[in-house]
Amino acid sequence: MTIDAYLEANRERHLEELLDLLRIPSVSTDPDRAVDVARCAEFVGRRMAEAGLDVEVVPTAGHPVAYGQWLGAAGAPTVLIYGHYDVQPPDPLDEWRSPPFEPTIENGNVVARGATDDKGQMYCHLKGIEAHLQALGRLPVNVKVVIEGEEEVGSKHLRPFLEERRHALAADAVIVSDSPMFAPGRPSITIGLKGIVYLEVEARGPSHDLHSGLYGGGVANPANALARMIAGLTDPDGRIAVPGFYDEVRDLTAAERADFRALGHDEDAYRRSIGVSAAPGEPGYTILERIGGRPTLDVNGIWGGYTAPGAKTVIPATASAKISSRLVPDQDPDAIESLIKAHLHALKPDGIELTFIHHHGGSPYLADRDGPAVQAAARALERVWGTGPLFDRSGGSIPIVSDFKEILGIDTVLMGLGLDDDRLHSPNEKFALENFHQGIRASAFLLEELARSG
Amino acid sequence: MTIDAYLEANRERHLEELLDLLRIPSVSTDPDRAVDVARCAEFVGRRMAEAGLDVEVVPTAGHPVAYGQWLGAAGAPTVLIYGHYDVQPPDPLDEWRSPPFEPTIENGNVVARGATDDKGQMYCHLKGIEAHLQALGRLPVNVKVVIEGEEEVGSKHLRPFLEERRHALAADAVIVSDSPMFAPGRPSITIGLKGIVYLEVEARGPSHDLHSGLYGGGVANPANALARMIAGLTDPDGRIAVPGFYDEVRDLTAAERADFRALGHDEDAYRRSIGVSAAPGEPGYTILERIGGRPTLDVNGIWGGYTAPGAKTVIPATASAKISSRLVPDQDPDAIESLIKAHLHALKPDGIELTFIHHHGGSPYLADRDGPAVQAAARALERVWGTGPLFDRSGGSIPIVSDFKEILGIDTVLMGLGLDDDRLHSPNEKFALENFHQGIRASAFLLEELARSG
Repeated sequence: MTIDAYLEANRERHLEELLDLLRIPSVSTDPDRAVDVARCAEFVGRRMAEAGLDVEVVPTAGHPVAYGQWLGAAGAPTVLIYGHYDVQPPDPLDEWRSPPFEPTIENGNVVARGATDDKGQMYCHLKGIEAHLQALGRLPVNVKVVIEGEEEVGSKHLRPFLEERRHALAADAVIVSDSPMFAPGRPSITIGLKGIVYLEVEARGPSHDLHSGLYGGGVANPANALARMIAGLTDPDGRIAVPGFYDEVRDLTAAERADFRALGHDEDAYRRSIGVSAAPGEPGYTILERIGGRPTLDVNGIWGGYTAPGAKTVIPATASAKISSRLVPDQDPDAIESLIKAHLHALKPDGIELTFIHHHGGSPYLADRDGPAVQAAARALERVWGTGPLFDRSGGSIPIVSDFKEILGIDTVLMGLGLDDDRLHSPNEKFALENFHQGIRASAFLLEELARSG
Repeated sequence: MTIDAYLEANRERHLEELLDLLRIPSVSTDPDRAVDVARCAEFVGRRMAEAGLDVEVVPTAGHPVAYGQWLGAAGAPTVLIYGHYDVQPPDPLDEWRSPPFEPTIENGNVVARGATDDKGQMYCHLKGIEAHLQALGRLPVNVKVVIEGEEEVGSKHLRPFLEERRHALAADAVIVSDSPMFAPGRPSITIGLKGIVYLEVEARGPSHDLHSGLYGGGVANPANALARMIAGLTDPDGRIAVPGFYDEVRDLTAAERADFRALGHDEDAYRRSIGVSAAPGEPGYTILERIGGRPTLDVNGIWGGYTAPGAKTVIPATASAKISSRLVPDQDPDAIESLIKAHLHALKPDGIELTFIHHHGGSPYLADRDGPAVQAAARALERVWGTGPLFDRSGGSIPIVSDFKEILGIDTVLMGLGLDDDRLHSPNEKFALENFHQGIRASAFLLEELARSG
């Protein structure tokens, strides 16, 4: 039986299995969901075992890692496939058209939290492996599959996992599908990822909430102070105003800027797709360059004082914000976090104290597009879609990619199977059914092409 | 029976009645509490009837007004007593030592939402009236008592109530107890109140929440934009930066500044009382001057994006803030609201749209301290506390005081019975039992003194 015949015969079952996976609310940041996260790891482990891998669900100090391997291709290359089974929180819940953990088929898409990030994309690889093992009885390369449960909270316990199993995890390449293709029918390989610093700051003023009439003018208001501090992190034109922030930024080369231009980004269509009339940002760069090639700083959440309907005349005792900065080569996340904290302290008025929570950090990444694994992936994508991939740089961060390089010494191929409008991290997240089924084929072909690249 | 003997004999019952009043969660801003608010109006009406007033609980387009009168003192002056039975929301709930609507006696105070603002203070007048009518069979003046249920949401429907009953409500003076005394044992009469503008602004960017990696740098972030707009409303030193904001501000005179100095404010003790090491504000003014005599601008609430524990890498579609500005003579609330909106629009980056909600507004007020009603109140306070009152200016706003002047043509005497540390609008709001019982005496004596001032 050919791979394609096997996939055709099992098409419905593969989709049903994905829907079952999406029904598990594996929200890794939510302590109340820990049982669901563990259940999800077991689910992934069982599916890997059914595919024909030797499986181990490995406990960590956080959420478990589902690990599977097949090492029967003596002399052939070894590939490490990475994905994650945890998902972002689903809120704001009231903006979903259907419940986030009740996957719904809508216009050729499956709509659910985690559909594209990363359950759908990750599952393509499990089914690509299954196709070889079940249809042909063997794989063309050795595979090691690491599916973790903490990607959305910074992969904190994957690093020790990699360090402990440094030798057992030796491989020639890492494959990750956790990003979008450039456009429908236009496959792409992401050669750049941003680093990230994510921190939370609390501005604390008076010891308790105060009446804004009886105390207004007589105390520094933490919400006003926080607004001023956040405003001071950027210039009005969008450049980041933290002293020293750009010191280690590698300028885009003329060749890199030509690559960005070659992507043919339609800025009008982009603005329409997100419903804005203008998309301002750092002067002198296109939108794609700003997203993929320049560092950024965003408030991800802000809160303080009275936020329910109606009016309450209060000076809040505290105000807080979650702030993240995306980094490019050669910025160092620890150094940038220190610069941001120092600048916030410098902007802080008297009478306000700051406390910080470090959420996570990760280094930026830029791959060699001419390496053998990248080129094998390019051939696999061309076999499926009939056109070779574009090479792009993403604004997203997958800190684990830097960890694979640092700890295991392996380069990563980012073979995106999602689409730009998949609304990952947003309500009504989706994954195109065509991308799911073609993604399984791409994974199966990739294993063949990797065998040829050895 | 003398007034004092009557009050002594009924001391416990009076307190029990106050505790029952405080058990009613009459949060006027919360639609889910509408039934409790109506129940509270009925409760107040029944107590006024028991005191001996002719009572009517008057429906409005919002919450009801509890109205009572006694007009048997032919030839004597008529006094209109105003208070409110509605309260602020109790949140943050987890900072209360005991549940906000289960009044608790603690160190000589009753602790509950509304204890001082305004149920406790308002109730002093009902019991002062009761003492005359029950102990002596009559009142020395005619009284009209208006207890409304919308003070904490801007008294929107009291204005039409006053307009409709313009003739029926004719009086020589209005008495309001809804403010603090200067200090324990130091009675005071507030001769100045601030005006207020309270509005909410929503900054809207993309049509849905976006991934901060895949879109960061490629779209204006509403939370960053809102922070910049709020920061632009004030100078770093605390002066308000809205163009035209100070145009109509009446400068403090040398005499007024001398009055502020005469209050002998201990700024160190003040800072300790609210737990801050510094209390910066508009340069060139003392803390009391800034609170009582200069306009202010505070964020009362701010929210947007992901605010639960952990990290979510999102660019929020919207961010919002509740912002209020306290006004002094001769600032006009409508004009100031327009200036603030215009400035926010001027500060708004491209790609962000603003929408506003007007919560409420009110004019500033400054009374004639030598008028007959103010002087009658001063004598009543001196009889109770053995020392004449100080005359101060509050940073608080009671828009209805301006309405009494504009609609009924009557000046208001603000006879505060609370204390500065009563934590009104905050968790663990309290009212001193001594102030409650002495406040009842002060109200009873005030009615006698008003008869003498006629």
